[in-house]
Amino acid sequence: MQNLSVDLGERSYPIYIGEGLLQQKLIEPHISGRQVCIVTNETVAPLYLARVQQTLQDYQVDTLILPDGEQYKTLEHLNTIFDRLLELRHNRTTTLIALGGGVVGDMTGFAAACYQRGVNFIQVPTTLLSQVDSSVGGKTGVNHPKGKNMIGAFYQPQCVLIDTSVLKTLPARELSAGLAEVIKYGLIYDAEFFDWLESVMPRLVSGDSECLAKAIYRSCEIKAEVVAQDEKESGIRALLNLGHTFGHAIEANQGYGNWLHGEAVAAGTLMAADLSRRLGWLSEADVERISAIHLAAGLPVLPPASMTEDDFLSLMAVDKKVLDGQLRLILLEAVGRGIVTSEFAPELLLETLSSQLVLARQ
Amino acid sequence: MQNLSVDLGERSYPIYIGEGLLQQKLIEPHISGRQVCIVTNETVAPLYLARVQQTLQDYQVDTLILPDGEQYKTLEHLNTIFDRLLELRHNRTTTLIALGGGVVGDMTGFAAACYQRGVNFIQVPTTLLSQVDSSVGGKTGVNHPKGKNMIGAFYQPQCVLIDTSVLKTLPARELSAGLAEVIKYGLIYDAEFFDWLESVMPRLVSGDSECLAKAIYRSCEIKAEVVAQDEKESGIRALLNLGHTFGHAIEANQGYGNWLHGEAVAAGTLMAADLSRRLGWLSEADVERISAIHLAAGLPVLPPASMTEDDFLSLMAVDKKVLDGQLRLILLEAVGRGIVTSEFAPELLLETLSSQLVLARQ
Repeated sequence: MQNLSVDLGERSYPIYIGEGLLQQKLIEPHISGRQVCIVTNETVAPLYLARVQQTLQDYQVDTLILPDGEQYKTLEHLNTIFDRLLELRHNRTTTLIALGGGVVGDMTGFAAACYQRGVNFIQVPTTLLSQVDSSVGGKTGVNHPKGKNMIGAFYQPQCVLIDTSVLKTLPARELSAGLAEVIKYGLIYDAEFFDWLESVMPRLVSGDSECLAKAIYRSCEIKAEVVAQDEKESGIRALLNLGHTFGHAIEANQGYGNWLHGEAVAAGTLMAADLSRRLGWLSEADVERISAIHLAAGLPVLPPASMTEDDFLSLMAVDKKVLDGQLRLILLEAVGRGIVTSEFAPELLLETLSSQLVLARQ
Repeated sequence: MQNLSVDLGERSYPIYIGEGLLQQKLIEPHISGRQVCIVTNETVAPLYLARVQQTLQDYQVDTLILPDGEQYKTLEHLNTIFDRLLELRHNRTTTLIALGGGVVGDMTGFAAACYQRGVNFIQVPTTLLSQVDSSVGGKTGVNHPKGKNMIGAFYQPQCVLIDTSVLKTLPARELSAGLAEVIKYGLIYDAEFFDWLESVMPRLVSGDSECLAKAIYRSCEIKAEVVAQDEKESGIRALLNLGHTFGHAIEANQGYGNWLHGEAVAAGTLMAADLSRRLGWLSEADVERISAIHLAAGLPVLPPASMTEDDFLSLMAVDKKVLDGQLRLILLEAVGRGIVTSEFAPELLLETLSSQLVLARQ
């Protein structure tokens, strides 16, 4: 087992990473009351719920099984968590455990932030995407029909438990989606990591445990470093959103759940790379590398052909990274160096949108 | 104008108290972006909305008018705030202004806590109850059919603006409801203030500006002192809930909005006083004084005759002050000295419930 720490003063917490951690009694020391509610979904429950329950025999353990999918990440389904907790009389000392992917983690974390004005929670991510990204850093929330993650809270867990062996049951499409976020860390922060990812991508895609563990560890390490510097995203943390502003527009336009988050981020990253090239920051060869690694990861590199420039512009205008009317984007100054900027001519953004959409329609 | 400060480190903020403050440009220095959304209700809007709008001519000022009443303090109506903000493309630098009573303040504050994971907000309370209690201290939230304020956040405003002249349009019943919380501060914290309240109660009830201003100032001062010591209610802050555990049960049982919050708190305070007497802490004369001051304030001193002991026990069991199955109550060791305790025989609580219910049914 490897340990990392997210350093946030009194809100600091550990990340445990390793094989077979679900069976170990790692959660218990992070529970302070006698009540626990495990929130999971219909896909994960039959695979791993019993395993986690078995490590918590000394507690009142209740469970809630949500439907599986981004389309259920709504205020309405959030309310089913509150219903359950109140029905079973969970009090302020209860601990919620999120056992599942990003949707389960984001919703459970937000429910914990709001239930009785805040109870403890623990992240047990079961997809690659949630292991390398959404479970770490305290971003929680639900979607709104007009925008992704528009309603939520910064709320940190007590610990994050990453059992890498659960990836063995993860569908290939989901593994690829998670790799989009792994590639992101290389692109914005660590050129050497990106080089390594290029060299081992076939092994990652085939589920090689050792490579995946290494990729997860380095991804979490970068995320923890960035979050510790800027918990509430007033600066550097925004880098983690490379490809996300374009990606959120794709997700919202296509209907949540049709494009996986990682798939939309991949197409969005290529749009950011294209714009970075137009600004003279990336070379054609850089963009080619970025495209190639996403293709090797089994990810889309173009937006949906059904979308228009206007779709993008209108959905991107409500993005959380808009400040006083100015759209800010995460772009790349080089492979391994992201930048948050609104210093780009709107014409260039339009050129990126139309050129990518033209390619998508071919 | 008088100023107070709620001292919470980097989350500290001022409370302004005085006549005619709505017309003054006191809000402006607390707005950081260019967008503002004033959330108010259908009762308050025709009276005071234009007045506040006029002080904000340099901003994009949008408004949302909610229906008036505790029964609308739900997740569903909270969502109408998000709808409006997204529709009008409010970004992360927006400021929400809560112009209204406790319901508007609690909902707007919670919406601010959650919108794009947190934006600024300002409290402009227009009822006595919200001026002396709910606008100060950062408790925000909505009700759930199974319990009051069960979903929410601790989230502090940028400032609180208390214009005492708005009380001239406040219905007598609402003024009385606010006095319940004023009396509470005397009971839990300041015997001298309680003595003074007894002596001026007829003037308070008749709307005497000078007396009301003094009562508001001292109430806010006590609240600010308590909140500064214990922002998230792990200790002393719970004292502010005198009468509230019983009161919440009454509100939930009777349907939100039928009993005003202050009315339920008044009946609940008398139940807490009765239990304190059974524990030998208060004398019969003390209880008599507490009853008399509530009657003088135009408040109920008995619970609804339609309720049963079981109604109370079952609704009180989900109260936020239950810890690991143990019901904690705020009781009185003396007039002017509250205590948070679970050290009471359950039989005594039952005696209190049945004796008060018997009296209510007479």
